[in-house]
Amino acid sequence: MQVINLDEYAQFREDGYNLRLLHDSPNWRIMNFNFEAGQELPVHSHDVESEVMILVLTGEGYFTGGESEIEAKSGSMLISKVDEPHGIKATTRMRVLVAIAPPI
Amino acid sequence: MQVINLDEYAQFREDGYNLRLLHDSPNWRIMNFNFEAGQELPVHSHDVESEVMILVLTGEGYFTGGESEIEAKSGSMLISKVDEPHGIKATTRMRVLVAIAPPI
Repeated sequence: MQVINLDEYAQFREDGYNLRLLHDSPNWRIMNFNFEAGQELPVHSHDVESEVMILVLTGEGYFTGGESEIEAKSGSMLISKVDEPHGIKATTRMRVLVAIAPPI
Repeated sequence: MQVINLDEYAQFREDGYNLRLLHDSPNWRIMNFNFEAGQELPVHSHDVESEVMILVLTGEGYFTGGESEIEAKSGSMLISKVDEPHGIKATTRMRVLVAIAPPI
C-alpha cells in the first residue's frame, strides 16, 4: 500500500508541462501533469491497445483531439483509447491526473 | 473519446455509500464513490492480481487497512494491490475516484 499526497507534486516549469510519475506497474502507469496557463499536451495517439484517463484536478482548459475542443475544469474526465487522438491544453495553471492501462 | 463531468455524479444516500460506475473495459473499471460523513468502504481484499487506486476528490476521512489509519483529504491517493487489505472511511461528506486495473 502506497499513499501519495498530490499536493507535494505541484511543481511547474516555464518551458513546458511538468510530468511527475506517481506509479508504474504492468497494470498501469499513473502520472501527474502540471501546466502553466497556455501550456499543452499536444494532440497525439499511439498505435497500441491501451486506454488513457485524464482527470482535471485544478484549473481550467480544454480537451483536444476530438471534432471540437471540450471545456475541461476540476472534475472533468476524459477517457479515450490511446490510438485515438487526444490532448489537453491549459488556459489557467492546471493540474491533471493521467492514467494509462496497460502502460505504453 | 468520452468526457465525463464528475459533478453530475455527486449523489449521496443515507443508507450507505453511493457507487457510480463511470467506465468499464477489459483494461480497468473506473468508479465514483460518494460518502456521507461516517460512511465507509470497509477494509477488504480480493484474491486476484489487480491494483486499486483511490483518489479523494473532496472531503476528508481516513484510508484504512494498513497498520494504522492514514489521513485522507482532497488530493490524497491510495494505490494498493487488491489482495492487500484496503478501505476508506469518511469523516465529512466525501467523494472519491476508484479505479481497478484490470477489473475484478
